[in-house]
This record gives sequence, structure tokens and C-alpha cells, in this order.
Amino acid sequence: MARIVYVNGQYRPYAKALIHAEDRGFQFADAIYEVIEVLGGKLVDATRHLVRLERSLSEIKIASPMGRAALLHVIGEVIRRNRVRHGVVYLQVSRGEGRRDFALPDAAVAPTLVILARSQPPAKMAAQAATGIAVKTMPDIRWGRSDIKTVMLLPACLAKDAAKHDGAKEAWFIDATGHITEGASSNAWIVTDAGVLVTRQLDHRILGGVTRATALDVAAKAQMKVEERAFTRAEALAAREAFVTSATNTVMPVVAIDGQMIGAGTPGPLTLRLRSQFHQTAEISAS
Amino acid sequence: MARIVYVNGQYRPYAKALIHAEDRGFQFADAIYEVIEVLGGKLVDATRHLVRLERSLSEIKIASPMGRAALLHVIGEVIRRNRVRHGVVYLQVSRGEGRRDFALPDAAVAPTLVILARSQPPAKMAAQAATGIAVKTMPDIRWGRSDIKTVMLLPACLAKDAAKHDGAKEAWFIDATGHITEGASSNAWIVTDAGVLVTRQLDHRILGGVTRATALDVAAKAQMKVEERAFTRAEALAAREAFVTSATNTVMPVVAIDGQMIGAGTPGPLTLRLRSQFHQTAEISAS
Repeated sequence: MARIVYVNGQYRPYAKALIHAEDRGFQFADAIYEVIEVLGGKLVDATRHLVRLERSLSEIKIASPMGRAALLHVIGEVIRRNRVRHGVVYLQVSRGEGRRDFALPDAAVAPTLVILARSQPPAKMAAQAATGIAVKTMPDIRWGRSDIKTVMLLPACLAKDAAKHDGAKEAWFIDATGHITEGASSNAWIVTDAGVLVTRQLDHRILGGVTRATALDVAAKAQMKVEERAFTRAEALAAREAFVTSATNTVMPVVAIDGQMIGAGTPGPLTLRLRSQFHQTAEISAS
Repeated sequence: MARIVYVNGQYRPYAKALIHAEDRGFQFADAIYEVIEVLGGKLVDATRHLVRLERSLSEIKIASPMGRAALLHVIGEVIRRNRVRHGVVYLQVSRGEGRRDFALPDAAVAPTLVILARSQPPAKMAAQAATGIAVKTMPDIRWGRSDIKTVMLLPACLAKDAAKHDGAKEAWFIDATGHITEGASSNAWIVTDAGVLVTRQLDHRILGGVTRATALDVAAKAQMKVEERAFTRAEALAAREAFVTSATNTVMPVVAIDGQMIGAGTPGPLTLRLRSQFHQTAEISAS
């Protein structure tokens, strides 16, 4: 449980972590977020997360609430006050509060900044990775700018709910041309019969995942063959291995798609190698 | 200025109208809203708005926070406490608060309900209607379920901002086939050279506007010819008249599209007739 939440300059007890009912994050989904893994009290890939945060904010013209160093300081403080050793930091910046109006407010309106941290038992994640997860595919009906990490997440919630009803942990979205875009909260990967890692190229339809980028670094170091390109559901069903990447999961094996077994129906060797080597390549920094 | 805001059972002073930082409306755009016109202290088309609210909630499986009669009572109370004679009521229901998780929470989580009311000087709206507004077209990159009145509104905000930079008051979205879907916060209409009113048929790409429905009733009463079908930007540019409908604007003349004059560049006669007869046909009920 998060006990202390940072809200606009104050470290508040959880029950008092409040924002205004006319916050643009609440009324318009006018907000950006990041999730950063905490490992042994340290931040994983903090630089890449903060660079992406800045890019997302800039794409929709929200001002940065503070500089990178100050932000890292607050993040560290939230981690310490919640005594998180292993878990995640959640950070959200909205365009701020004010009288409801679609038009963007003038620059004087201060963004809203919320930061919280939660423990996540590594044993639980390890157990899940040992078994692997099932995914369910469905049409990608999200807006056209999934490359910006906004809170436009209702379709992701509905997709995860539909997946859950089918016993799956994640949804994989399929675009109008029949290609997988990404997961509802992860990037999608397969390993072809030839042993090639395939994940979609970066475009407006998918988020440039930080864990995706670091997984590419791990694969390069391990001299694995990688192709960044779109792949179809049929190709995924015929894949030797499949997995997803996200800050919460790092590298998580996928063992079934739409109820059909992938490979032997157990986590694949390349997937597990990427997972086990992940934190050796990721940036690990004091918080 | 709204002075009193209803939040989850309490009438709070504006500054204390707060919701939790882990509300799903704030973190996931997991919320529904309605805007209802207030005319002389009375509600315009309340039944249609509440029916639509129930439909939106049901489409994404959020429980109704209270029955229709109770909701009308609270809305009336918010109007009175804010002394609104002419203006709007804004009502938002989110799926509630709790530990951040994409998956939908179990049914025990109570939805968040926020209701506020604001005065809007009729003279200001009348002046705008006398001149008419300009609109700017742009690609429709919203998610695939614009028929549900969710707070997935960031693309609408960005579109309105882009329109504003071009001196336009509203954005009209164009789908992949070159047809206008609707405005960022209104339904789009044109009057053809043959004097036929055209507005897009209801589908997943547009909101079933309450003001649109009542405007159709007004048109039927006045024996105007109407076609509910998609129309292109070219058809709109060649139209004799154009207008938008929304609870905030009722019927608002459009006199320019992408900088090109529509008709004589002044509000059209059919548009003004619809506007002037609107409240005679709409349901007006005590609040």
C-alpha cells in the first residue's frame, strides 16, 4: 500500500492525496504518466523514463512541472517515505486545474504533479515469469497517438477486462491491416522459427517502451537477431516464443495467444535469457 | 464562477471540491459526463441527457451512482446553491478510486460523482449566434467509440486549440474516407443547395447528441427536409448553410470552414429558424 503520495509540492498521507474535481486530468484525460521500476531501492532506466516524460509533455504542450534533478529528488523521497525496496514509482502530470474549457489554458496555469510508489514482491513476478502469461487479441480502437504516454487509457482498461474474462493477463491490439500494434500496457514481441526477435517499429500507433529499448540493448549485446517490423496475428500464433515488455513486467513470457499454445506452451529460452540479463544492461541509479 | 460543487454526497465549497489522486477518472479516463443546459433555472432536455448518461455508463459497465429522481434532485440543488438562472450543469461519473490497476475493480467500488453548475450569459451566446463561428477541419484521430460520452477528450482539446490558432471556434473531424464525423464538442450540420439539412447518421464515430436529436424534432415540426448521412468536406464547403449543435450552443451558425466562407458568410435562415424554435420543442423541466 502506498502510504505517502506527493501532490503538488506536498507529501500527503494516502487518504489525503487529493486533486481538484476540475483538474484537466480528470475532465479531459489531459495528462501524461510514467511508471518506473524500483529495484533494491534504486531506479531502473530513470534517464530513459524522464526523457520520454519530457517528450510526451512537449508533444501535447504541457509545461514540465520541474527540472529533471528536482524530479529525481522527489521520486527518491517518495520511495523512501513508502519504504519501497522492490516495486514501482507512478508519476502523473496533468495540465492543471481550472474552469472547464476544452481550449488549453494560458501558460500561467501550473501543471498538477502526483507521484506515488508501491512495493511489488519480486517473488510474485518471478513466479508469473516461470509460468508465462496468456494474451488475447482484439481490434485496436485507441486514438491515433499511442506514442504519447497519456492517460487516454479507457480502451486499454476495457481490453484488459475482456482479456481477463478469457483467462488472459494482457490484450494485444490488432490494427486495421491485421498487424499487432502492442499490448494494452506493454510492447509485444515474438521469436520466429528462424530465431529472430520481432517487435513493431516505432510509429504513432505504439508507445516507445523504455523496457522495449533496453530489451533491444540486451538483445544486441547477446548478438541476437532482431527485426523491428509489424507482424500479424497468424505470424504470432506460429511463433516459437512470444513475450511482452513493460516497466512492471520487464520481460514477461507469453505462452498462449487467443487460447492457442505458443511454442511448447512454456516460457521460451531467448525470452528467459533476455529477462535474466535485463538488469545487467538497464541503467540502475540511486534514487 | 461555480461556488458549490457536489462531490460524492457532499456540497463542497469550490476550493474544497476534491477527488482522490487515484481516481480512475484521473488515471485512466475511465469516466462518463453530461452537460445540460439551464434555462431560467429549468433543465433543458433532462430526460434525454439522463437516458444517454445511463447508456454511456452501461456501455463501459460503470454502475449508476444513483437513480434518476435522486440525480435530478441533486442537480436541482447544485443549480440553486450556485444561483444559476441561465447556464449549464456539468456532471461526471468515474468508476471510482483505488489502487491503480487497468483491470476493472469489483462491483463494491463506488463510482465518483461530481456535479457543478455555472452561469452563462445568454446575451453572450446570442451575440455569437448573430455573427456565427468559424470551424477548422482536421483528421479524426479519436478512439473508435465516440458514441460513448467518455472523458477521452484530449484529442478534442488539442483540436480546439489548433482551431483557435486559426481563429476558429470549433474543429470538425474528418474520418479516413474523407467524411466529416462531428465537431470536437458538437454535432456538425450543413444545408445543401437544395435546402436539405444533412447531419451524419448515428454510428460509433459520433456522439448521439441530445441537442442533435431535439434539432431533428424541430426540423420535423417545421417540415424541413433532413438526411442523416455522412458528408464530405467538399460538400460542406459548397453548402448554403452550416451549423453545429450542442447543449452549450443549442444551434450555432457556422459561417466559415477552413477560412472559406459558407453561403453569404452570415448565419443562414434555416439555421436561425432552428435556433429560434429550439426551446419551444425541447423538454423544459423544473430542476
